[in-house]
Amino acid sequence: MPADTLVLATRNEGKLRELARILGYRIGLAGLDAFPAAPDVPETGATFEANALLKARAIAAFTNLPTVADDSGLCVDALNGMPGVLSARWAGQHGDDKANLNLLRAQVSDVPDARLGARFVCAAALVVPADGTAREWVVTGEVEGRLIRVPRGSGGFGYDPIFLPNGFNQTTAEMTPDAKDAISHRGRAFRALAPLITGSLT
Amino acid sequence: MPADTLVLATRNEGKLRELARILGYRIGLAGLDAFPAAPDVPETGATFEANALLKARAIAAFTNLPTVADDSGLCVDALNGMPGVLSARWAGQHGDDKANLNLLRAQVSDVPDARLGARFVCAAALVVPADGTAREWVVTGEVEGRLIRVPRGSGGFGYDPIFLPNGFNQTTAEMTPDAKDAISHRGRAFRALAPLITGSLT
Repeated sequence: MPADTLVLATRNEGKLRELARILGYRIGLAGLDAFPAAPDVPETGATFEANALLKARAIAAFTNLPTVADDSGLCVDALNGMPGVLSARWAGQHGDDKANLNLLRAQVSDVPDARLGARFVCAAALVVPADGTAREWVVTGEVEGRLIRVPRGSGGFGYDPIFLPNGFNQTTAEMTPDAKDAISHRGRAFRALAPLITGSLT
Repeated sequence: MPADTLVLATRNEGKLRELARILGYRIGLAGLDAFPAAPDVPETGATFEANALLKARAIAAFTNLPTVADDSGLCVDALNGMPGVLSARWAGQHGDDKANLNLLRAQVSDVPDARLGARFVCAAALVVPADGTAREWVVTGEVEGRLIRVPRGSGGFGYDPIFLPNGFNQTTAEMTPDAKDAISHRGRAFRALAPLITGSLT
């Protein structure tokens, strides 16, 4: 592993490609698949920022390499901002996208349209280890919109089929990957982090 | 139906008995079973107070009799106060206590104990129709506590088996009905409403 490698604390190939694209491929990137013994970091934080930092710190400590981690989710007005940090395990099991989506649809079935406002939020953290201490940054990106009741589109993942971003007639599951990146919470957070990454590593 | 009857907008016999006990049986009480054609009132409000008033207004308008309605739920810190007004349908179907309880347990499985604070909240509304207008009151009762991870007790209903009220070693499902009434959100709301009922009807 070259010393100038940046670790992205994820096993998700799509996130790796997205960050590489945003950074302009100028920096070597490795995912968690390159570190089979890396610890599993439970997302016990109360906020996206806390969880992104938890994960980035743990992986930076393990790899001794600059590390980016993100945490994201969907915040629904009618649910006081939940599923929020529990978005990926809303129906009880981690990562069961279909169960999470269907549970949320059922929960808001009697909620009037006026309270279906929602936003996707992503916090992205960068931790650069240095001689026993570390420098840390965390930024957030958001995209505002509202829930629709009947899913549309087969792209994206998670709650994308029921999320209509403000100003668009397509759900984020109906957009091309490039169009989604341009407005998405993760795209925005990663783009905000990019200059901090290049500034701290180069 | 005598003109001095008070309607409690519920089909729940337990609630009827509880309100009768608190009012000292001085007032004739009828549940919704006495009004088979009464409308179903969707609980579309954003707050317990709004839902209790929605229900009391609709039933008072239908019966032209003084009407009490309540709405209650469990507000969990780690879920930004949810399940809240969605407590009875948290897992998607109305009134599936077991599914609701198990979903909530799964959702908080990674949440640290420090954020398992929770409270039961009940809003009770009284609507007294009078010549095309109506007088309205709404009061709330709360009981503070915290969630436990493994259910205990077979009394009560809903989330009682995982709710430990502050200052007690028993869940509300392990308490006798009288002990629970003495501290419960619904007991407190109904007791707060009692003098308003007797004052407005006698």
